Amino acid sequence: MAKGNTMKFNLRISTLLALLLIAFVSGTAAAKDLLPTWNDGPAKKAILEFVAAVTDENGKDYVPPEDRIATFDNDGTLWNEKPLYVHFFAVFDHMKQQMAADPSLKARQPYKSLATKDKDYFVSLYEDAAYDTLLGQLIGVPFGGMTTDVFANWGRAWLKTWKHPKYKVGVKGLIYQPMLELIRYLEANDFKVHIYSADEAAFLRLVSEELYGLPPDHVHGSSVRIEYVVDEGKAQLVRTYRAHYLDNWAGKPRLIMQELGKKPILAAGNSNGDLHMLQYTALTGGLALLLHHTDGEREDKYDSHTDKVMPLAKKEGWTVIDMKNDWGVVFPAP
Amino acid sequence: MAKGNTMKFNLRISTLLALLLIAFVSGTAAAKDLLPTWNDGPAKKAILEFVAAVTDENGKDYVPPEDRIATFDNDGTLWNEKPLYVHFFAVFDHMKQQMAADPSLKARQPYKSLATKDKDYFVSLYEDAAYDTLLGQLIGVPFGGMTTDVFANWGRAWLKTWKHPKYKVGVKGLIYQPMLELIRYLEANDFKVHIYSADEAAFLRLVSEELYGLPPDHVHGSSVRIEYVVDEGKAQLVRTYRAHYLDNWAGKPRLIMQELGKKPILAAGNSNGDLHMLQYTALTGGLALLLHHTDGEREDKYDSHTDKVMPLAKKEGWTVIDMKNDWGVVFPAP
Repeated sequence: MAKGNTMKFNLRISTLLALLLIAFVSGTAAAKDLLPTWNDGPAKKAILEFVAAVTDENGKDYVPPEDRIATFDNDGTLWNEKPLYVHFFAVFDHMKQQMAADPSLKARQPYKSLATKDKDYFVSLYEDAAYDTLLGQLIGVPFGGMTTDVFANWGRAWLKTWKHPKYKVGVKGLIYQPMLELIRYLEANDFKVHIYSADEAAFLRLVSEELYGLPPDHVHGSSVRIEYVVDEGKAQLVRTYRAHYLDNWAGKPRLIMQELGKKPILAAGNSNGDLHMLQYTALTGGLALLLHHTDGEREDKYDSHTDKVMPLAKKEGWTVIDMKNDWGVVFPAP
Repeated sequence: MAKGNTMKFNLRISTLLALLLIAFVSGTAAAKDLLPTWNDGPAKKAILEFVAAVTDENGKDYVPPEDRIATFDNDGTLWNEKPLYVHFFAVFDHMKQQMAADPSLKARQPYKSLATKDKDYFVSLYEDAAYDTLLGQLIGVPFGGMTTDVFANWGRAWLKTWKHPKYKVGVKGLIYQPMLELIRYLEANDFKVHIYSADEAAFLRLVSEELYGLPPDHVHGSSVRIEYVVDEGKAQLVRTYRAHYLDNWAGKPRLIMQELGKKPILAAGNSNGDLHMLQYTALTGGLALLLHHTDGEREDKYDSHTDKVMPLAKKEGWTVIDMKNDWGVVFPAP
């Protein structure tokens, strides 16, 4: 072989080697289980089959990538919510500081109920009709007059130091490892994943990237009305005392359409507040996932706020995730 | 050379060639003018310098990619708005059809003003205080009771057939070519580009991908309240007659924070309705671009709705884009 031919030949070999390497790497990725902490069972099977169906270009259920929207509830779906929503722990800590600085606050709501440990007052937040009014008392009043920047600084500082009373870990230790895998698995299949939570979006957004790898504009939730204020050459957005939007119940599918202009084809939730989002998804041909907290050993076994959604899930044949049986682990390794 | 060494040597050569090719291709891309229809002048210079500064990792003005948010107004900023907003053409055509089917509508607003050509009524939409009330009359009333799907079908059909009375082109011919280049240029520099328009988001979203390459969730605007309805096993979102949000004036920076959870570092607009968004961006260290419609030959020369924003732009030293002098072309080639 002449020198030129040798080089040509060897260039071809190197190209071939590169192609083989690419084929090997892709083959490995395709064969790899992207949901390793999900036990084999009906829930994992339903997820894998659904994703296979909507990504099969030749199948009848194919959905183009731009319409692959997945929406997840947060509390009790992506992270632990017992004995209290993390967001409530944060708000209550702030209110306690406010009461320490100004004890006269204890004479009025919502401080009065916190000071007297009147749990019923806060539980009543979860009665549909009352929620909208009380929402302002919980996420509006304690932070009214703060700029959005000051609020974010407060939230970040709280999130950095707080530890869960039972598990003794910060928020990173409270997320559900199987759900984190599910988010990554959906993204690997060209889904856009969004959170729709009854928590205030401005709070969750402070940790969403770190916890779930989801940027702030993929996190949606309840909100307070903010005002635009220019003072001495400084432009700021200032929180009012008033609720702007309640992202719960029917508020979830409404907000999804308002903000994304599309409907979800996969939705996951765990309580009555997610009923409408799950129902909307299921009735328009998508996959509805309802997480059932059945694991009293690794987490908590409970059925609170599920009296409406659980019977509907069973009647409609939605996919119920049984935490005890379907998940190999609950929380991430420390 | 032994055979093994030759291959090793040649593999190195091929790697080197590949690297050279990559370097060549990147070099070409970097040298290519991504704003070819922008004339050399102060506006183009300001844009190039700003983008260079925020993308320079070693510079004092560096902004990480996740915070590179750019927000654009739509009417008069991304596409033509004279003699009327495209959105208004659409709504009026629909109202005319409704009046033809039911002439009794002419007795009440907003139909009455359309039937009697009472321009003042619609112009009054642009008085800040009145707008919020009248918004519902314009985007709510004519479409109240429609599902979001039926509305989308109506809008798509209208957009497919409508032609501009002066230019005799559809909406694709009404966009500003230099602004389209600016969007692509910003994206090439890892900006996330969003539209914030006083138009109804649900309408603009029907063409945003085709016009600007921007998906529905990057298009934000005014909205009506929608309700979630389940009827005979079918889940639907139904438009009410009531305005939900007015995305104009201070409503723009407020909605940006509500939906994205971040502030824009570059904003572009053309009228008083964009004042707060531009001011917020400028006062927090970003680049504010104000398009001035100075070109009576290729488009229209006008100063409507700029009596507040233009003096402020000059006082604050914002970048004013002079359409006549700064743009080599206005509309895309047919």
